[in-house]
Formats: sequence, structure tokens, C-alpha cells
Amino acid sequence: KVDGDRLWDSLMEMAAIGPGVAGGNNRQTLTDADAEGRALFRRWCEEAGMTMGLDRMGNMFMRHEGVEPDLDPVYIGSHLDTQPTGGKYDGVLGVLAGLEVIRSIRDMGLRTRRPIVVANWTNEEGTRFAPAMLASGVFAGVLTEDYANSRTDADGKRFGDELDRIGWRGDEVPGDRKIHAMFEYHIEQGPILEAEGKQIGVVTHGQGLWWLQVTLTGKDAHTGSTPMNMRVNAGLGMARIIEAVDCIAMNHQPNAVGAVGQANVWPNSRNVIPGRAVFTIDFRSPDLEKLTSMRSRLKTEAADIAAELGLGIEIEPVGHFDPVTFDEALVTKVRQAAEQLGYSHMNIVSGAGHDACWIAKVAPTVMIMCPCVDGLSHNEAEEITSDWARAGCDVLLHAVLETAEL
Amino acid sequence: KVDGDRLWDSLMEMAAIGPGVAGGNNRQTLTDADAEGRALFRRWCEEAGMTMGLDRMGNMFMRHEGVEPDLDPVYIGSHLDTQPTGGKYDGVLGVLAGLEVIRSIRDMGLRTRRPIVVANWTNEEGTRFAPAMLASGVFAGVLTEDYANSRTDADGKRFGDELDRIGWRGDEVPGDRKIHAMFEYHIEQGPILEAEGKQIGVVTHGQGLWWLQVTLTGKDAHTGSTPMNMRVNAGLGMARIIEAVDCIAMNHQPNAVGAVGQANVWPNSRNVIPGRAVFTIDFRSPDLEKLTSMRSRLKTEAADIAAELGLGIEIEPVGHFDPVTFDEALVTKVRQAAEQLGYSHMNIVSGAGHDACWIAKVAPTVMIMCPCVDGLSHNEAEEITSDWARAGCDVLLHAVLETAEL
Ligand SMILES: NC(=O)NCCC(=O)O
Ligand SMILES: NC(=O)NCCC(=O)O
Repeated sequence: KVDGDRLWDSLMEMAAIGPGVAGGNNRQTLTDADAEGRALFRRWCEEAGMTMGLDRMGNMFMRHEGVEPDLDPVYIGSHLDTQPTGGKYDGVLGVLAGLEVIRSIRDMGLRTRRPIVVANWTNEEGTRFAPAMLASGVFAGVLTEDYANSRTDADGKRFGDELDRIGWRGDEVPGDRKIHAMFEYHIEQGPILEAEGKQIGVVTHGQGLWWLQVTLTGKDAHTGSTPMNMRVNAGLGMARIIEAVDCIAMNHQPNAVGAVGQANVWPNSRNVIPGRAVFTIDFRSPDLEKLTSMRSRLKTEAADIAAELGLGIEIEPVGHFDPVTFDEALVTKVRQAAEQLGYSHMNIVSGAGHDACWIAKVAPTVMIMCPCVDGLSHNEAEEITSDWARAGCDVLLHAVLETAEL
Repeated sequence: KVDGDRLWDSLMEMAAIGPGVAGGNNRQTLTDADAEGRALFRRWCEEAGMTMGLDRMGNMFMRHEGVEPDLDPVYIGSHLDTQPTGGKYDGVLGVLAGLEVIRSIRDMGLRTRRPIVVANWTNEEGTRFAPAMLASGVFAGVLTEDYANSRTDADGKRFGDELDRIGWRGDEVPGDRKIHAMFEYHIEQGPILEAEGKQIGVVTHGQGLWWLQVTLTGKDAHTGSTPMNMRVNAGLGMARIIEAVDCIAMNHQPNAVGAVGQANVWPNSRNVIPGRAVFTIDFRSPDLEKLTSMRSRLKTEAADIAAELGLGIEIEPVGHFDPVTFDEALVTKVRQAAEQLGYSHMNIVSGAGHDACWIAKVAPTVMIMCPCVDGLSHNEAEEITSDWARAGCDVLLHAVLETAEL
């Protein structure tokens, strides 16, 4: 078994970097805080005898040598970046649990045939630079390096420039690695495990996702002196489409969600009818048909709303992946590890996107989940117990040892 | 008659200060650009032999002496501040037309019994610091100096501190002036005069206004892994209330308008259900009963929407005035001046709020309007012709000479 206290202490020490405003974290990707978090993780890994690989997307690969160094390694990976008002565990748990696995293996004097690599994937969250899981997407060959480097944040700063600025761009070609298997351990970020009283989620599938960005163009005009019938109100169009997103998701129940996370109007002045609105839509479902149907309904309804209000409309896709089925053999290994350890478990579908969803395209991949309090995530109040964290890490250790061959 | 070319040249010279991004202006109140605009106006006035009074709200009073200096002066006033994406004429025309009246009087060697004061009222627009017409409101005794000084902009900067910073706070107690009559000349900011083919709007009334600021409190949560029925989505609540504002205004037709100008959600991240939304509502009508009814309907409907979605709601009133009836005798003088000059004219209700709406509380007040292209204002593309500008300025000159007694 792993050392739960050590894992917890490491989580707390990492959380001190890039603190939020309400007890959580704001350690967004490619910020100074991100660089500081990476440096701490590297130091810990090197203290545990690991060596670093770094690719041109800033993906970190901390290698624990195997008895047979030429065999393809087993990977454990997640991300150290957070939301602007994020929690202390989302992503971080999966990376530091990987480190704890190596620390435990060393403590116990165990050797595996295969090397084990603990990965920190760059820009998983996707808030500063859309889309999410950007660098694992490049690694998996579904996005190009040029595309990633050219993504801009709200201030117009480019991903590539910011990666250079913080000094974490490596030489390795992204994707130029053989992966025998990859494990990602993550908090559920939803309410199911807690409600069902289970310690371990055996993740069989991941939801597919469509991210769209909508731009509506109307006409700035005076709120007082412009008659109602002369208005071309981009804010009103945005409101109707936000409502439509909710209705469309409700009409695809169960197993479908939809929401608008970003919403901005211009010039954002009390006495000016907004002449421009830009907002983002997030649709998800584990069912490809539903996902496609939500997207096409949105397209129709948004076009109708824009036409009715006389607005120009542009819908840009900024992120997409199909529903994922994780590797059956690895799923079985995770379930068996939970059984052997006596932890309660259930099958679960990941509601969030994860680096594992991209890596599943190029290697056998699986996820392990632990509960989180009230299913709350992407919120500074995100919380888990150290017992939950440890149980999942135990399962990770066992499944990884099984796969890396003791 | 006034010198229309000189008036136009002054308008263009002022528009060079605080240029916008699309041909208009961004010369918001108490910015460096505002200070520069004030200095230019002061220089022009002093070159025309006028002397400056400045009160503790930064209101500028440029005095042209009368034959009988002890008589209460006739005022001509409007504002030099603009919207963030504002036009070149909104407010500025009324101030520089006042200056042109004095320049013309001097050119013609005329003398009036009463002094004439051209006023630039601070923070008419109300975008940077709500509410609009803040300093004329203090002058009229409807708002306190403390209230005005404590208003903050989006960066948390205080009105009082910014007024000190730009160096335009005077010693005079606001309101400590006797006004025989006040004239405000302004572009219509609406489509009626142009549509009716009239050169002059004789403003008989001004719409009343309610400005409300709504804060909705929900719960930040993950857009992917939070089931639809567990969401407390402040952005969705905002959308429904934006829609309600539009419906309520439409249900009070004719002679009522309503819109949401500012709309912000937090944390404004693609994959976070907004836990907080703050937005502003602007309802107006020349009919007090309709104005009151819109406000109370909104209160009920917004509370219902919040309750249905489980959101906390706070509605803060941030600006209000009742519908205004302008001084009958002055209205008649404006109409007669238009008649004598042979300009086409019609009665009109001001759709926008103006400093004149507050000054009407403490002195006989009237407004004159000229058309603007497509009724467009609070937009950088705001446009008027120099003929329109000149015609209204001629009417202003005649009505002021009549009132200040040649
Ligand atoms: N796990 C997680 O929150 N990832 C961010 C991408 C997403 O929105 O699902
Ligand atoms: N005239 C003008 O646009 N004033 C600003 C206050 C308002 O919104 O009516």
C-alpha cells in the first residue's frame, strides 16, 4: 500500500503554489505559478531517482527505470494546471499519485521489468488557451504543434510564446514515445461515487464533447432613445441562445449536458444596447448520436434566433472529441486491483474530458476515479478526503505493478 | 446666425482628443483624455473673454459677463465626456454650441443684460461611474457629494480620487448658483427627427428611467461532470432575466424601452458553469405609471426565475429619475426661435437622460435637439451633418438672446 499521508502532504505543498482567492488554486497553464509547480514536481521526482524528458509542448515525462529499459514503459499521467478558480485535486492528484507510486515502489525495494513514466500534460484545463487537453492532443496526433502554438489567451498572448517565456519547452518531438499502457487517476468531478458510497470508480468510458464559440453582431445603440423595433441587440440574442443550449441538453436526457461558460458583451455599458456578444457552448454526451444531434439542433436554433433579431452569427468549433471506450484489459486490471484491496467500486463514465481521452487513441488507456465532496469541481471549494485519495492511489499502484510486471 | 463652420471645426478638434477605435471617441469621464478636453474647452472660452468657475464635482462654468452682472445668468450646458465607444457629438455639441453662441455674440458686438454661462457637467454618461448625470444630480441636490465621490469604476477606482487625480476639482459648493434659465442643445440620439424630416426638435418632456443592477449567485461547477439537475447556473438565470427585460418592455408598448447593457459572468471559463452573474437593466418611459410597472414586474419575474433555478438574487437600484416636463415658457421660446429662423420643427420627448433633466428640478430648463443619422448614438459611427448642427445652434442663439435680454 502507498503512504497516504505523504501523498496528502505533497498535494498540500503543491496547492501552496498559485493560491486562489477562496482556498483553492489559480495555477493556470503557462503562468509563472505553473512554472513553479513544474519545478517542484521535477525536484520531487529527481529526489526519487527519476529522470526528466520534456517535449516541445512542455509535456513532462519523469522516468523511473525498469529492469528491462528497452521495454515500452507504463505511463501514469494527468495535469498540474488548474482553472482560474479551481480546486487543489483536479489533475494534481493524478500526477502526485504517480509520484507516490514510484516512492512506494522504492520504499518497498520492488523492481518492475518495464520502466514507469509519470507525465504532466500541458494545458489540460483549456481555460486560458482553448481547447482543453491541448498538449496531450498534440501528443496523440489529433492536433498539430502549429495549431497549439498559435492559440491565444484573452490578452492575445500566444501559447507558444508563453511556453518559451516560462522556460518549459523541450526538444522532444511530441508523440515520439511508445506507451505500453497509460493510467490516469482523477477525482470524479461529479456526484455519483459519493452518492453510491463507492471508493473507486472503474472508468469504462468517457463522454464526447463539442465546444463551440458563438459571435453575434448587432448594432451598438442608445438604450433610451432607440425604439424597441429598431434594436439589433446582440445581448438579447446571446440570452436566447444560452436558454436554447439548456433546453437542447434537457431534451436529450438522460446522459447529455450543455451549458454556456463564457459570456461577454460589447461595449458592456449600462446605456448601450450590446452590438456584439461572444460566448462559448459546451455540449457533452457519452452517446455519439446525442452529441451530434445537440450540435446540429443548436446550429438550427441559433441561426433562427439570429435571423429573427437581425443579428449576424458565426459559430466556430473550438474543441471536439468523440466518446471514448477505455481499454478492456486495463479496465479489468483496475477492477481486480480494487477487489483485491477490498475497496468498494463501480463502473463509471467520465463526465469530464481528460488527457487519457486523447492518449486512448495511441495506446491502451484507462482511468481510475475517487469521489469528491458534493460532486463539486471547477470550484475553489472542491474537496476530497485523504482516505479517498489514498484508496485510489493503492488501486493505481496495484494495477501499475501488474502491468509493469514485478 | 452663428458660424456653422467654426462650430464644426471646434467639434472636430475636440474629437481628436480621446479617439475611439472606429472613428468615434473614448473620452470617458475623469480620464486623462477628459482632462485634456476640459483644458482645450477652457482655453477656447478664455480666448472668447470668458472666466471660469469650477465646483467640487468638477462642473465647469464659463462665464460671459452681462451688462448687469448681478442678474441671474442664463445657462447653456451639456457634457464633454463620452461613452467608451461613443460618438463625436453626444454632449459635445451642446457645450461647443454654447461656446459658439458666445463667439457669435462677440462677433456681432451684441451685449445682453444677463450674464451667460456655458457649463460642462461632469460624468454625464455614467458608464465609468454609475449613475449617469452624476454631477448635475449633485448640483440639483438629488444626489450627495459623498455618494458621488464614493462611486467606483470597474477597477475599483473612486470618482473622488479620480477627480483629484486629473486636477479638475474646484472649491465651489455644487448647486451654489442661481440659474435664471438653462438650455441644453443635444443630438436626438433617436430616429424620429430624421424620419419626419425636421431640423429642430422642441423638447417638451424627458423620459423617466430606472437603472437596476442584478447579482445572481449560483455555484461554480464542472460543465461536463455535473448532472443537469444539480446545476445552479447563474448564467442561465441572467439569460432568462435578459429575455424578461425585453418581454416586459414589449408588453408596455408604446412609449417604453428596456435592455440589458452590461452582462458579466464568473469565472467566465468555458468549462465552468457560472456561479455568479452581474448585469444591469435600463428601463425608460415618459409615462411614470409604465416606468413603475416595468420595474415592479421585473422584480417579480426575476425573483421567480431565481427561485426556480435555486439562485440567490440581489437587485440594487443604481439610477433613477421620474419623467420630466420642461418649462413651458422656455419651450415656447425655442419653438418661436425655430419659426422665426424658418427651420422645420416638431415637439419631441427626449429618449435619453440629460443634465437638463436634473437642472429642471432647480431652474426653468429646456432642450433643443437636432437629428442624427439613422438615430444612431452610443456608437462610434454616430453622425450628424454640419447643417443640422448649425440650425440647432441658431435656434439656441436666438432663444438665449431672447432670455438673456439683448
Ligand atoms: N478534468 C477536467 O476538468 N478537464 C478539463 C476539460 C473538461 O472541461 O472536461
Ligand atoms: N444623453 C445621454 O446619452 N446620456 C447618458 C444617460 C442616458 O443613458 O440617457
